[in-house]
Amino acid sequence: MKFGILGTGIVGRTLAAKLAECNHEVMIGTRDVATLLARTTPDAWGPLPFSAWKQQHPEIQLGTFAQTAAHGEILLNATAGNVSLEVFQTIRGDDLDGKILIDTANPLDFSHGFPPLLSIVNTDSLGEQIQRAFPTMKVVKALNTIVVELMVNPKRLADGEHHLLVCGNDTQAKAEVMSLLTNEFGWEYVLDLGDIAASRSMEMLLPINFRLWNVLHTRLLNFKIIQ
Amino acid sequence: MKFGILGTGIVGRTLAAKLAECNHEVMIGTRDVATLLARTTPDAWGPLPFSAWKQQHPEIQLGTFAQTAAHGEILLNATAGNVSLEVFQTIRGDDLDGKILIDTANPLDFSHGFPPLLSIVNTDSLGEQIQRAFPTMKVVKALNTIVVELMVNPKRLADGEHHLLVCGNDTQAKAEVMSLLTNEFGWEYVLDLGDIAASRSMEMLLPINFRLWNVLHTRLLNFKIIQ
Repeated sequence: MKFGILGTGIVGRTLAAKLAECNHEVMIGTRDVATLLARTTPDAWGPLPFSAWKQQHPEIQLGTFAQTAAHGEILLNATAGNVSLEVFQTIRGDDLDGKILIDTANPLDFSHGFPPLLSIVNTDSLGEQIQRAFPTMKVVKALNTIVVELMVNPKRLADGEHHLLVCGNDTQAKAEVMSLLTNEFGWEYVLDLGDIAASRSMEMLLPINFRLWNVLHTRLLNFKIIQ
Repeated sequence: MKFGILGTGIVGRTLAAKLAECNHEVMIGTRDVATLLARTTPDAWGPLPFSAWKQQHPEIQLGTFAQTAAHGEILLNATAGNVSLEVFQTIRGDDLDGKILIDTANPLDFSHGFPPLLSIVNTDSLGEQIQRAFPTMKVVKALNTIVVELMVNPKRLADGEHHLLVCGNDTQAKAEVMSLLTNEFGWEYVLDLGDIAASRSMEMLLPINFRLWNVLHTRLLNFKIIQ
């Protein structure tokens, strides 16, 4: 399958590397390829400058956001939540039409320091805004509630005994994404919360995560839903 | 110990009954005692009119909010979150000064139907607003993230293998509340999230709970934090 990963930060890189390892044809996309490759200092969230990481992953193609969306049969949004909508606006509608978008982003506002606030909250969510702005995409919210190390390696924690949440309007798209999460990323507990409006509740889990990171002194944590 | 429970709905009744069962001297408070006792129809959230419930609990005293606060050495807020601040304003400052308040309320706005929105969110919380308005009280946020049946009976679910969250500014007050929750209510997993600002993250857990009730067809659920 051809995947297009939008965003070259630590989330985009981790997802791209895992999908390539699973023998998918992966392109990772950025705003400006030349600028990205010219950077020699590590990113805020990544241990390596992108160009060094890219050399370790020759099998992963690099393109603009538009080229990456054109490449992917399934797209993943790994851009910062505060620029996600703007990123999609640089892509031709034809390259989004009918495609699944796995939205891993959170609408975080770091302008007041850490922990960030949510810039969209309560009555709306980033997942819903993307779905409304691009109604022909099939937005599936997923992977936004956990730290990147767990996204593609849930068994690093308690042998995978914790939950991943997903939501979205398209049942078939959700089934495809849930199958990917289970069969390729290793998630045993994937729970469908319903339509894309559940993005609100998923994005509103970030504040409790920030608190838990702080009091438990680890970001390698998650919730198990007990019923 | 003398407890004052503010609010006569299902949460107030459940907490009052449990504390009385533990041999505490409990008073439960309402706005207007005569009006409450005159009601003959069940409350929206309670199976019995209050007067019928009260007859089953002769050991529990009934008073106004002001009388109840005067009675209690420890207070519990079991009023609806949208009226909590107003309730505390009917109480003499001397009857709040230096007392622990266990705040179980959530700032829910049902004006758009179910699920409710949060009327305070993201940059503030009900727990913080109460603490700011009554700075000499020691507000401990607790019990707001679970359905009432679990509050005093955590072992009804998975033999108690799930987490209760608390937060508050006063370390000694939190220790006292956590001891009550563990030794009298039966909570084995009580996690201190830090200062009262963590109320935000706790109140923002309500939306995910509403979704989970809906998709799992039960309100008897909770989270276990896996690390």
